Amino acid sequence: MPQLIMKFGGTSVADIDRIKNAAARIKAETENGHDVIAVVSAMAGRTNELNASVEAISPFFDAREYDTVVATGEIVSAGLLTLALQEANVPARSWQGWQIPILTSAVHGAAQILNISTDAINSKFNEGMRVAVVAGFQGVTSDKRVSTLGRGGSDTSAVALAAAFGAKRCDIFTDVDGVFTADPRLVTKARKLDRVTYEEMLELSSLGAKVLQTRSVELAMRHKVRLRVRSSFNETNGTLVCDEEEIMENKAVSGVAHSRDEAKVTLLSVADRPGIAAAIFGTLSEASVTVDMIVQNISASGRTDLTFSCPVNQIKRAEKKLRELEKGQDVNFDSLVFDTEVCKLSVVGIGMRSQSGVAAKMFQALADYGINIKVIATSEIKISVLVERKFMELGVQALHDAFDLHHG
Amino acid sequence: MPQLIMKFGGTSVADIDRIKNAAARIKAETENGHDVIAVVSAMAGRTNELNASVEAISPFFDAREYDTVVATGEIVSAGLLTLALQEANVPARSWQGWQIPILTSAVHGAAQILNISTDAINSKFNEGMRVAVVAGFQGVTSDKRVSTLGRGGSDTSAVALAAAFGAKRCDIFTDVDGVFTADPRLVTKARKLDRVTYEEMLELSSLGAKVLQTRSVELAMRHKVRLRVRSSFNETNGTLVCDEEEIMENKAVSGVAHSRDEAKVTLLSVADRPGIAAAIFGTLSEASVTVDMIVQNISASGRTDLTFSCPVNQIKRAEKKLRELEKGQDVNFDSLVFDTEVCKLSVVGIGMRSQSGVAAKMFQALADYGINIKVIATSEIKISVLVERKFMELGVQALHDAFDLHHG
Repeated sequence: MPQLIMKFGGTSVADIDRIKNAAARIKAETENGHDVIAVVSAMAGRTNELNASVEAISPFFDAREYDTVVATGEIVSAGLLTLALQEANVPARSWQGWQIPILTSAVHGAAQILNISTDAINSKFNEGMRVAVVAGFQGVTSDKRVSTLGRGGSDTSAVALAAAFGAKRCDIFTDVDGVFTADPRLVTKARKLDRVTYEEMLELSSLGAKVLQTRSVELAMRHKVRLRVRSSFNETNGTLVCDEEEIMENKAVSGVAHSRDEAKVTLLSVADRPGIAAAIFGTLSEASVTVDMIVQNISASGRTDLTFSCPVNQIKRAEKKLRELEKGQDVNFDSLVFDTEVCKLSVVGIGMRSQSGVAAKMFQALADYGINIKVIATSEIKISVLVERKFMELGVQALHDAFDLHHG
Repeated sequence: MPQLIMKFGGTSVADIDRIKNAAARIKAETENGHDVIAVVSAMAGRTNELNASVEAISPFFDAREYDTVVATGEIVSAGLLTLALQEANVPARSWQGWQIPILTSAVHGAAQILNISTDAINSKFNEGMRVAVVAGFQGVTSDKRVSTLGRGGSDTSAVALAAAFGAKRCDIFTDVDGVFTADPRLVTKARKLDRVTYEEMLELSSLGAKVLQTRSVELAMRHKVRLRVRSSFNETNGTLVCDEEEIMENKAVSGVAHSRDEAKVTLLSVADRPGIAAAIFGTLSEASVTVDMIVQNISASGRTDLTFSCPVNQIKRAEKKLRELEKGQDVNFDSLVFDTEVCKLSVVGIGMRSQSGVAAKMFQALADYGINIKVIATSEIKISVLVERKFMELGVQALHDAFDLHHG
């Protein structure tokens, strides 16, 4: 029975040497007495290649066929890693989603895992298999079609397998050493965190620290799967993503996240009556616009200004939908104002719940550098602001300094 | 219900444009009222790439994992062709071996098709699907592992589907215009055959005219599947491979085949007693040496010379096995003589059965150019000779002229 899930991302299986390296890491764990489920992504770049082929043929593709095509990248990795394990004398075999099976919803391209059967894999472990190499990112629908879980879905595959098999740990191997207090490419003093709570990780991953797929963190939190983010390029310990109870003391702020390509949209002078916001955001949601922050100013004379943010590459879609809405006369407003030159800066920390003054300190740190704040949004453990994109790097560094994050 | 099977080889789905072209060819058939099963190979070069990755990791690979990896090439083609059909407003969906299912033996890498279920595909045709795009080359074992049918296996997939669905024709789209009286790269006057019998095609494909996989021709002959070999690059009619009855009159010789990389092995002075030949060729077969021609000279004083031919790249393996056999003292011989500079020339024709003098004419034609014959082998409808490789092109042309093949 597998005690350990080891997930290898695209850069960790990018070529033959990296695949052999992954096999060696897995072999070491089997020598520690662990049976292992290894979950693999496609070799770095392959999913993009397949994606490009699909879009070149069919811009508005049938998602079932898209899934059929892109899921092959993980199958190749799984087969090759299995062969590398066998070469290293580790009894292993590969598994595709339908072979396990990993049953998912039929929302192709963003399927939800409904059930994972453990019987087939466990019976092979009982026969002496030491490693099950599972093609990540994919499952199968009740209709026997191949489905995929969305970008970064292999993380979710790994966590779901950990939950299904009751594994004691799920190691996510990637090309960074763990979760940092900020992006080390922007902040040279950024420090690797030894531990981070699920809640913080959730905010960090949805805020643009692209270490883990957000859904995988949610799933880990729900099933209390101990996740470890670590590098496949060295032997450092990485970052453990775990329950709050496992972390002794929490600083107010654990990390600074940023998200580069944001846009801000303001509807000036919208009628302020019930149902208007629902109409606007319902329409945007139907068009798959991922609205993030929403701010509504105080109403004057029955009209108000409404501002929201979304990824900059969705701005055209958003505008089209809002213009349609205006023509349909369900909603009227004076004008639309777009700002496509903004970024989002956030501070995240579970300690924020019990410590005050975090927001004030954040705003002061930005003000000290003359960085103007355009929109503010907060949650229990996070404060986010939109600022001009040119201030992104400066802002992240200022916040990292202000909260003294380079000291552990 | 599908009336037509259309198989597209690697060069016919080599890139986005070729895939769109294939979709257009299929669409034209649906507009003629046909429901179609399209069978695809991997995009040209992809199988070689995957092959190379497998061998780089594991030279003596687990064939089950090899199959898992290489079968992905066809899945990608199937998905992309389906998308191209949908873009052209043709209702289509892709099918992998396990989804149909195409049940095969567990001889991975060279699996035999045991059964093809028609239910799932037919039920989609009944729902309005016009084209089922099937990933060629692959099936699934009773153990739910992905299997492949060996190089060129997509031809076999196509013919087997034609037999299972009772299709009225199976068109094999490739990068040549059909089956020729000789390789047009060697003989400029080579003429495309309008029709050729299964028996002739069988000899031609196993003799190095690499138009169709040999197994696919056997299968077509057994199930009387009318096969048409045609180009996906133009609209010419191609060559129909069919029953002898469908061909009015047979010339003595229909075509000249050649096989470049042959080798000849002679065991000098082998003990001539029962069981010796069985021991030798049994051993070679175990080592997967594909022995082709075998000649045994008249025995003198209880010892004989034994000559056989095999592909030149198997000669090392053959030598190793024969030396082992000698050491084991089961078989002894004076010496081994290798000739790795030979090629095979063959004339093939179903009319040969009723017309005499073909062999004499063949040998004379070669003698006229001073080409020495090293080994001769014959079947009912074929005469093959080994000659020095440097005479290959000259020999093919001489035979083509001698049998007047450029005249229809």
